[in-house]
Amino acid sequence: MSTLASKILVVAGIGAGGGTGAAVARLFAKSGYNVALIARNTDSLNKLSEDIQQSGGSAAPFPVRNYSGPEVSSAFAAIRRQWPGVPIRTAVWNAGHAVWDAFLNIKDEDVEKTAEGAFFGPISFSRESIKAFQQQDLDEQGSRGTLIFTGATAATRGNITTSVFASGKFASRALSQSLAKEFGKQNIHVVHAIIDGSIATDRNAGEEKTNPDKNLYPEAIAETYEFLSRQHRSAWTWELDLRPAHEKW
Amino acid sequence: MSTLASKILVVAGIGAGGGTGAAVARLFAKSGYNVALIARNTDSLNKLSEDIQQSGGSAAPFPVRNYSGPEVSSAFAAIRRQWPGVPIRTAVWNAGHAVWDAFLNIKDEDVEKTAEGAFFGPISFSRESIKAFQQQDLDEQGSRGTLIFTGATAATRGNITTSVFASGKFASRALSQSLAKEFGKQNIHVVHAIIDGSIATDRNAGEEKTNPDKNLYPEAIAETYEFLSRQHRSAWTWELDLRPAHEKW
Amino acid sequence: MSTLASKILVVAGIGAGGGTGAAVARLFAKSGYNVALIARNTDSLNKLSEDIQQSGGSAAPFPVRNYSGPEVSSAFAAIRRQWPGVPIRTAVWNAGHAVWDAFLNIKDEDVEKTAEGAFFGPISFSRESIKAFQQQDLDEQGSRGTLIFTGATAATRGNITTSVFASGKFASRALSQSLAKEFGKQNIHVVHAIIDGSIATDRNAGEEKTNPDKNLYPEAIAETYEFLSRQHRSAWTWELDLRPAHEKW
Amino acid sequence: MSTLASKILVVAGIGAGGGTGAAVARLFAKSGYNVALIARNTDSLNKLSEDIQQSGGSAAPFPVRNYSGPEVSSAFAAIRRQWPGVPIRTAVWNAGHAVWDAFLNIKDEDVEKTAEGAFFGPISFSRESIKAFQQQDLDEQGSRGTLIFTGATAATRGNITTSVFASGKFASRALSQSLAKEFGKQNIHVVHAIIDGSIATDRNAGEEKTNPDKNLYPEAIAETYEFLSRQHRSAWTWELDLRPAHEKW
Repeated sequence: MSTLASKILVVAGIGAGGGTGAAVARLFAKSGYNVALIARNTDSLNKLSEDIQQSGGSAAPFPVRNYSGPEVSSAFAAIRRQWPGVPIRTAVWNAGHAVWDAFLNIKDEDVEKTAEGAFFGPISFSRESIKAFQQQDLDEQGSRGTLIFTGATAATRGNITTSVFASGKFASRALSQSLAKEFGKQNIHVVHAIIDGSIATDRNAGEEKTNPDKNLYPEAIAETYEFLSRQHRSAWTWELDLRPAHEKW
Repeated sequence: MSTLASKILVVAGIGAGGGTGAAVARLFAKSGYNVALIARNTDSLNKLSEDIQQSGGSAAPFPVRNYSGPEVSSAFAAIRRQWPGVPIRTAVWNAGHAVWDAFLNIKDEDVEKTAEGAFFGPISFSRESIKAFQQQDLDEQGSRGTLIFTGATAATRGNITTSVFASGKFASRALSQSLAKEFGKQNIHVVHAIIDGSIATDRNAGEEKTNPDKNLYPEAIAETYEFLSRQHRSAWTWELDLRPAHEKW
Repeated sequence: MSTLASKILVVAGIGAGGGTGAAVARLFAKSGYNVALIARNTDSLNKLSEDIQQSGGSAAPFPVRNYSGPEVSSAFAAIRRQWPGVPIRTAVWNAGHAVWDAFLNIKDEDVEKTAEGAFFGPISFSRESIKAFQQQDLDEQGSRGTLIFTGATAATRGNITTSVFASGKFASRALSQSLAKEFGKQNIHVVHAIIDGSIATDRNAGEEKTNPDKNLYPEAIAETYEFLSRQHRSAWTWELDLRPAHEKW
Repeated sequence: MSTLASKILVVAGIGAGGGTGAAVARLFAKSGYNVALIARNTDSLNKLSEDIQQSGGSAAPFPVRNYSGPEVSSAFAAIRRQWPGVPIRTAVWNAGHAVWDAFLNIKDEDVEKTAEGAFFGPISFSRESIKAFQQQDLDEQGSRGTLIFTGATAATRGNITTSVFASGKFASRALSQSLAKEFGKQNIHVVHAIIDGSIATDRNAGEEKTNPDKNLYPEAIAETYEFLSRQHRSAWTWELDLRPAHEKW
């Protein structure tokens, strides 16, 4: 059944499988998408893909060694081979590298991983997503496709331990805004979601970490992503913030 | 049937009945709300209320002479009498006065109307909405109520003909952000929607003014407002923008 | 000597005489300006005017009952009579009303005073300043005049006790940005200064309140205002922030 | 004479010698700084250094092959050898790579140069500057040193041809804000200047490109940088914008 789904979600970055990327994958699978999972962690990738399939969804893993242009390009080619002729309607950039530390303590390795996750990677992923969207017809909402970036508070505000992390998050936000402006005219929808707060990635972590007044539920984030992918083209959102009800900000 | 609806929408500002306020009223009526319409224009108010009722919805008009504290307070008292014991779950501030002109040409009357629509009025409306929300239990999403402000690009950027208009829109935005922070802890959700572009208020206005790539459909704005009123409390949005796919920004 | 000064500073809002407005007045007097002091507090006004004169500066008090259009207009007419034919080169809006409180505790009187100080007053003051600037030749920097608004952090961010205060500060900021865009083309320079932190208004207040790492010195703010009034027209600043070195932000 | 100057300016990025970096170097040399010039273009570097020396200033060239950590670190070591024991009081990051093009046309080489100029380079330069500042005493204004970033409008707003360029400029802005917050407590002053408009880099370019109402004069930018380096620590600026009087924005 699931192989008959008429559209594809591509999500890059699924962490250990308990966060935003995985929740987005699960919800879109339920909503009738074939789900293409891109990540570096092959174990998480395979496990999530199998979980979705066992729930009756359509999913496949597309491991990459990194988010360089050639790797991302190969992954998209494999996705096209997996579901030939099926349009990619939503693409979610959810990968990245987070480092919180005093500026002078931050290692070159973290600087480079941040650049890959927030500068080079999003550019590669956006190129492939947009090129795919451009080949496709409009859907019933008047959209060729929706590209969503998972941002953070650090995308709008630097702080004492986020010198490098915020540099990366700001960079992705700028990319998303530029692409929204450049490709809106081609009916391509680009979104930047500012996730402000800690995410309840493990439901057994105790009240402190799973209280929905104080932690973001990945499923709730996914519901907003899913809504954004369905917005009518006459009223598209580029940016919104998401935070728990009691979050201090 | 409609009088059995278990929640109330209050919307202030419905213009001539073809814009955002009216579309929000119609959509929420379909979604099972009793719709309380507040506005100064009694004719539009009565006509919209009757239209909604004829479509099987529950609605009632609550005319005000202006948006001063006593007038708004009286309207909310009348709403409580109309639907006793029914919670107000969503309140939308959609009123305002728009003046685009060279600064030195703007008349005192326009300055005063702007202050009423963007400073005094939103404060009065927020007071009544929040006091109502505070009396209510949490709904299934963990919210006592959602207060939505209709903003504009002029809420984030002044420009050559918007000196006074932007002053007002900035003021409402600040109010909405402050209230979101102050009352989030009480599970009250406050939203600011930046409407960026011209709204297709008249469906017979010709392609130029009704092309959904270039004009916001009030129904599409309403769909986002309705989604925002249903967000789970673990992932609430304070602010988002809405614009047509081809809008230059 | 001082009556021969070839330019005028108008400053509105001097509080008790120990803050930004007074420091600006003193510094500009030393820099060769006739200083026109506008405020509601006649005692502070007269005292500051006399102080400046005793230091060899040129100053005069112009009391107003409020910042309505007619009152501000009368003050500017009196300034022209005081120093006939002398150009107003700098005008500083430093007045306002500050209320920090829970939203539902804020009294109507505070709402109204905020509107006067942040919405109506700045509009009146800007009208008079700009009309005066428009009559004047360019100075050696290519400017007809500089209009400076004293802003605050609350001009860019609402918070839990600043619902009304931030509404006002946002409003003034929008006005300043709009005017900067509209009148830049007429070589009129408009500036918005975000004062972020507490001001050392009383030099005998003890280390806690006078430590320059933790408190803004009014004289230091005044030095930046004076620099801004001298910027060459090819590189004008609309907005900057000012805060003590150790301020948390 | 010039070798007796008691403080050092380090400026990275001087282009062809007619823009901001060079003007900053010349003005600070006149104000009593030894000027350390860092750039990749050895010819421009040597020429500017000689020009400053011929005008009676103290300057020396420090060529780098790129802005990687080791190269920048070597340059700073050479600066210390050139003027042993003299404090670095101002450091200006003015380098970068600008690419304006449709997103899908931008070459990998431009993406990599942008990352070097706006992400890796500023991090390397900031590390060296801050480590130098930390070793120094406070100056008469209470500052250990001032680090200034030359930003652009693209640091605050992405646009249709600035997808990659804005990503870089946003990144540097985030870095500057984070560092301002982290190191303000150590009395290190970090500034981000948004240059909005075209710079009059060639004084013989004709009225269109040298009209001070429409183009930024590098000397005027330099005057603001010099003022910022002298601000008293009780009222420091993190960010300001600079644009010509008639600039549309």
